[in-house]
Amino acid sequence: MDAMMMDAMSKDMMMPGMDTMTMDMTVMQACMDACSACEQACTVCSTQMMSCGPACMNCADMCNTMMRAMMRMQGMTPAAMMAMLDACIAMCQTCMDECMEHAAHSEVCKMCAQACQACMDACMAVKHMMAA
Amino acid sequence: MDAMMMDAMSKDMMMPGMDTMTMDMTVMQACMDACSACEQACTVCSTQMMSCGPACMNCADMCNTMMRAMMRMQGMTPAAMMAMLDACIAMCQTCMDECMEHAAHSEVCKMCAQACQACMDACMAVKHMMAA
Amino acid sequence: MDAMMMDAMSKDMMMPGMDTMTMDMTVMQACMDACSACEQACTVCSTQMMSCGPACMNCADMCNTMMRAMMRMQGMTPAAMMAMLDACIAMCQTCMDECMEHAAHSEVCKMCAQACQACMDACMAVKHMMAA
Amino acid sequence: MDAMMMDAMSKDMMMPGMDTMTMDMTVMQACMDACSACEQACTVCSTQMMSCGPACMNCADMCNTMMRAMMRMQGMTPAAMMAMLDACIAMCQTCMDECMEHAAHSEVCKMCAQACQACMDACMAVKHMMAA
Repeated sequence: MDAMMMDAMSKDMMMPGMDTMTMDMTVMQACMDACSACEQACTVCSTQMMSCGPACMNCADMCNTMMRAMMRMQGMTPAAMMAMLDACIAMCQTCMDECMEHAAHSEVCKMCAQACQACMDACMAVKHMMAA
Repeated sequence: MDAMMMDAMSKDMMMPGMDTMTMDMTVMQACMDACSACEQACTVCSTQMMSCGPACMNCADMCNTMMRAMMRMQGMTPAAMMAMLDACIAMCQTCMDECMEHAAHSEVCKMCAQACQACMDACMAVKHMMAA
Repeated sequence: MDAMMMDAMSKDMMMPGMDTMTMDMTVMQACMDACSACEQACTVCSTQMMSCGPACMNCADMCNTMMRAMMRMQGMTPAAMMAMLDACIAMCQTCMDECMEHAAHSEVCKMCAQACQACMDACMAVKHMMAA
Repeated sequence: MDAMMMDAMSKDMMMPGMDTMTMDMTVMQACMDACSACEQACTVCSTQMMSCGPACMNCADMCNTMMRAMMRMQGMTPAAMMAMLDACIAMCQTCMDECMEHAAHSEVCKMCAQACQACMDACMAVKHMMAA
């Protein structure tokens, strides 16, 4: 996400029940970017018509939903946010496991698995920040 | 979802790590339909430009993602499925709470809250079935 | 879409630049339902990992976007609506053509092609209504 | 989109009925990135609960659908691609017109309008390339 947009957005962004002081926008932005990159990698990977396809499609949709939710924090609660992050992490894990089976002979699967790992890491960083 | 499509689909549907015998397709179909109805109610509700809007948009996206995932069970694991169901339940709860505040003076909010409740119930029914 | 929701929604629904008198909500509702059914059929069909997969995924996304736009008419213009309907029709045609190649040996592809045809017909009915 | 992913993807990417030689991947990549940026700007803008909201939501969905379709060219035809590009351009125009009315007093609307303009330009560049 564009830095100027992020700055304009963060002025309005408030999640009910969450102290905005604990929300580091750099960590949030990194997670949105990782979700976007993972959605794109999964979308490309799913066109290969390999066995990882359904997991990639599920992961692409979950990552897009996660990214958008982080841009609409006024409509989130800490409980919903934590549950969505857990779902995104679980879906990325599933997709990564599937893609790793083809990573040796598919460059796309290898990159998809890497995007899933990066997305999981970024989601976990948001979770840790929120739990602090 | 159309019964004939559901029947054709269930022949192929297999979730790794889950005994298909424990999956009752009637419970699954009811949940997909509830997700679809909730996505539609939330989409309409979000156009009212009331304070529930962002929660409705988040809920619409999560319900669509949940519905699609139930149609792509080959790309799910029990762990990912459980996490997604929890996320969908938490998002429906958040949206319902927001919409209930306007239910007295907005018929659309009232119906959106009812669709959220029905979607939560249907997701919980799938969870109970999977845990059995 | 639920009839009560449709009724509540139609009270608010106004597309700038379009006389609401010319909009028959029965035709609109039939199109939303056809888009929803087509999204679902395409989502299931895409999990078969056959050559129609990418077309099915494109069609599922376009049909969902079309359905949602018809529920958010305040944010449409007649020109945008016509262009979106044309895109949805073109995408359904592409998907149907792909699926028809497998219709003889895949019941799911056959049903997906039928859902695409029904969605095209419903979109054309909305176009004719708007042009009247 | 990541350059390495784009490179891996372009090896597989083939649209039936279109000479791949006429497809400049740099132009395609710029369009995908503009669609992604526009989806994000529209998603943020729609949370402001201003009158542009429904147009922003429509535009966000159309841009995401457009971006994904460009990543799944195996499931496109030149006719469907042209129709989708026209729909994306029309939707961006509608959203930009709405947001420009608030651009003087909303920094988010101003940036959303700019993202819509950039997305329209990028879609037109793809159209011109395909028509060449």
